[in-house]
Amino acid sequence: MDLSHRKAVKTVTFTDQSGKPLAGRRISIRQKEHAFLFGCGGFDFIPYVSKGDREYKQVTDSWLEIFNYATLPFYWGNYEPEEGRTDFDSIMKTAAYLKDKGVKVKGHPLCWHTECAKWLMDYDNDTILKKQLERIDREVSGYAGIIDMWDVINEVVIMPIFDKYDNAVTRICKDKGRVGLIKEVFARAHESNPDALLLLNDFNTTIDYEILIDGCLNAGVPIGAIGIQSHQHQGYWGREKLEEVLERFSHFGLSIHFTENTLISGDIMPAYIEDLNDWQVDEWPTTPEGEERQAREIEEMYRILFANPHVEAITSWDYRDGGWLKAPSGYIREDNSLKPSYEMLKGLVKKEWWTDTEITTDENGRAGVEAFKGQYSIDSDNLHADTDFVDNSEQTVVLDAV
Amino acid sequence: MDLSHRKAVKTVTFTDQSGKPLAGRRISIRQKEHAFLFGCGGFDFIPYVSKGDREYKQVTDSWLEIFNYATLPFYWGNYEPEEGRTDFDSIMKTAAYLKDKGVKVKGHPLCWHTECAKWLMDYDNDTILKKQLERIDREVSGYAGIIDMWDVINEVVIMPIFDKYDNAVTRICKDKGRVGLIKEVFARAHESNPDALLLLNDFNTTIDYEILIDGCLNAGVPIGAIGIQSHQHQGYWGREKLEEVLERFSHFGLSIHFTENTLISGDIMPAYIEDLNDWQVDEWPTTPEGEERQAREIEEMYRILFANPHVEAITSWDYRDGGWLKAPSGYIREDNSLKPSYEMLKGLVKKEWWTDTEITTDENGRAGVEAFKGQYSIDSDNLHADTDFVDNSEQTVVLDAV
Repeated sequence: MDLSHRKAVKTVTFTDQSGKPLAGRRISIRQKEHAFLFGCGGFDFIPYVSKGDREYKQVTDSWLEIFNYATLPFYWGNYEPEEGRTDFDSIMKTAAYLKDKGVKVKGHPLCWHTECAKWLMDYDNDTILKKQLERIDREVSGYAGIIDMWDVINEVVIMPIFDKYDNAVTRICKDKGRVGLIKEVFARAHESNPDALLLLNDFNTTIDYEILIDGCLNAGVPIGAIGIQSHQHQGYWGREKLEEVLERFSHFGLSIHFTENTLISGDIMPAYIEDLNDWQVDEWPTTPEGEERQAREIEEMYRILFANPHVEAITSWDYRDGGWLKAPSGYIREDNSLKPSYEMLKGLVKKEWWTDTEITTDENGRAGVEAFKGQYSIDSDNLHADTDFVDNSEQTVVLDAV
Repeated sequence: MDLSHRKAVKTVTFTDQSGKPLAGRRISIRQKEHAFLFGCGGFDFIPYVSKGDREYKQVTDSWLEIFNYATLPFYWGNYEPEEGRTDFDSIMKTAAYLKDKGVKVKGHPLCWHTECAKWLMDYDNDTILKKQLERIDREVSGYAGIIDMWDVINEVVIMPIFDKYDNAVTRICKDKGRVGLIKEVFARAHESNPDALLLLNDFNTTIDYEILIDGCLNAGVPIGAIGIQSHQHQGYWGREKLEEVLERFSHFGLSIHFTENTLISGDIMPAYIEDLNDWQVDEWPTTPEGEERQAREIEEMYRILFANPHVEAITSWDYRDGGWLKAPSGYIREDNSLKPSYEMLKGLVKKEWWTDTEITTDENGRAGVEAFKGQYSIDSDNLHADTDFVDNSEQTVVLDAV
C-alpha cells in the first residue's frame, strides 16, 4: 500500500533563534496532529460541554484520543424548533470547546428535506427559499472562524422525489430543480464565508450522483469536497465496491470526504429494507463475534481510503453504540467500554500512521525527515519549535529556548 | 382529451388586396401543413433522390402523404468513412429535396460513441475533440438553411461508461465528463448556426437523464428541445409510463421531441436483452395480429403525446419493415404495402387533427376560425391567400386575385 501521498519527505534545516544551524544534534520529531481528518460524530460533546453532563466525560475523553474532526448537528427542525429560537448557545459553546482541543468541526447540514423545520411549511415556496438562504447566511457567518466546514446540502438526488412526507425543502427543490437549488445554497454559503470548505453530501453513490456533481461543477457551484455517506447497516461494502466508488468519484479531481460511515458489531439489517429508517427495533445488541468483524471491516475500509490520494477525511457516524437506529455502530459500547474497533483504529491513527522519531543533523544542521503530514513538536535539549510538515519542499525550523 | 393547445382559435378579418373587407362571403380554409412535427426516418429518400433508385419511389411517395419532418443520418463512420471523404453530395441533395417538399429535416447525430469514425482512434484525445468540434462546425454551417435541426449529441448518459468496444467519443467523454463534452459540442453547434434547434437525445428516461438535463441547463447549454427515444421492441410502454415520463421531463419547460419511436407488428423481443443491438435474427416477420396491435399502440401513444403541450415532435424510426434489427417496425411492409398503422396514423394526421372547412364572414369581413396550428390555403371564389394559423391573436388575411 503506497502511502507516499500521506507523508512529507524532505530535507529540513534546524537552527537556533539566531539562525545558527544546530549541527550534529539529536532532534525529536513528535507528531501532535494529523493533516488528514479522522472524524466522528461529535454529538456527545453537546451535553458534556453545554450542560456539564458528567456522564459524557468518559465518552468525550476517549473520543479525543483518536479523532481530530467532529460533525455537529444543524438539523433545522431541532436547531430552530420555533422560528427565531435557535440552539446557538450550546452548539457554539461545543464547537469552540472542540476547536480549543484542536478538533476541526463540520456543521451538518444546512439544507435537507429530513429533520426539516415544520413551521417552514406555513410559508409559500418563495418565502421558504428566502428563509433557507437567510438560515444559511446566519449559521455560516455566525460560526465563521469556529466552524469553517459545512455539509451545505444533503441527499439532493432523492430530494425532489422524496415522498414519505411533505416538507418545505422538497417543495423548493421541486420548484428550482436539483442543480438550481444547489447553486443557490452554495452561492449563499460561499458569500457568507468565502474561506469555508463546502460539501455536497449524499448516500447515493450511483451514476445519479456522478451526473449531479458533473452538472454542478459545470454550472460553477463552488463544491470544495464531495461527501459520500457509507452507512453499512446492511453489511460491509467490501474492497471491490469501495475501490469502484473511489474510482468513479476521483475523476472530478476534488477531494473526497467519507462523511458518515457506519459498520455495526451485531446482526446485519435485512437487505430488503430500502430506507434504513424503516428498521425500528427495541434493541440491537453488540456481540463478541460482531465486534471482531466490525474491527476487521473498519480496518480494511480505513486502509483502502487512506491509500487513496483524493480522500481527505473519513468520518464515522456514531461514536457510541445505541445511537441512530439503536445500532451497535460505535467504537465504544453503551456502558462506555472500548470495543476492538476502538483499539484497532487508535493503533492506525496514533501508531502505524503516526510519526514519533528522532533524527541527527549533519554539520550544517540538516537532516532528512519522513513524517506523516500534520503538526509537529520539535525538541532538542532545551530548544523547542512547533511546525507543520505537509509537503515535500525544503524547510527551515527555528527552535526557541523553552 | 384537451387539444386546445394544438389549435388556433381566433377572429380573422378577410379583405381583398385593396383592404376592403370581404363581407358575407364563403371562405374555404384548407390546411396544407401541420405546425406540429410528424416525423419519420427519411433514410429511404437517399437512394431515391441521390441515386434515382426507382425502387424507393413508392416508399417515399406514401411517406410524404403523412409526414412533414425527416431524420437524415449523419453517423460519422458512414458519413466520413475516410477522413476528408464525406457523403455531403447525396445527403445535401436529399435534404434539399425534402425541404422543397415542405419537409423539415433533422440531422442525426453530430456526436455519438456508436457508428463513430474508426480513423479518429489514431489521434490523441485533444485532437479527437478538435476534430469533433470541426466536424460539427462543418455540418452545421454547411447545411444551414437546409438543415436547421440537429441531434447534437446522442446517448450521453451511457457514453463515458460504454464498454462494448473502444471508440474515440467515449474516450473524450471520459476526459471531459458528460456535461463538459455536452457544453463544448452545443457551444460549437450554436456558434455555427445560432438559429438552429439543438437537441440532446437519449434512450435513458430515468432520473439519470433528468439530472443530466438539469445540470446542462444550469451550466448554460443552449438545449432547444429534449430528445426522448422510445424504441419499444420489447413491448409498448403503455399509458402509465408515457404519462410518467412526460410529467418528469415537462417540468424543465422545454419542448420535448419523441425522436426515435418504434412499435413492432410481430413477436416482441425478450425482456432479458439489455442492448437491443444484441438481438440478431435472420428474419422477424410481421403478423396480422401484430399489425392490429401495432396500430392500436401507435394510436394510443400519438394521442397521449399530441395531448401534451410540451411535445412538439413525434418521429417514428423506421418507415418500412425490415430496417433496424430487421424488425417489423414500419408503417409499410417490406413489399411496400400499407399496414393498418399507416392508415390509422394518416387518419389522425390528415383527418382527425386536420382542418378543412368553410366559414362565412360577417358584414365586416370577419369570422371566427378554429383550426389546427399550421399552414393554410384560404380561398373564396377567385381570391386566394396562403397564411399560417399558429396562435389565438386576431389576424387579417389579405386575399389576392389568383
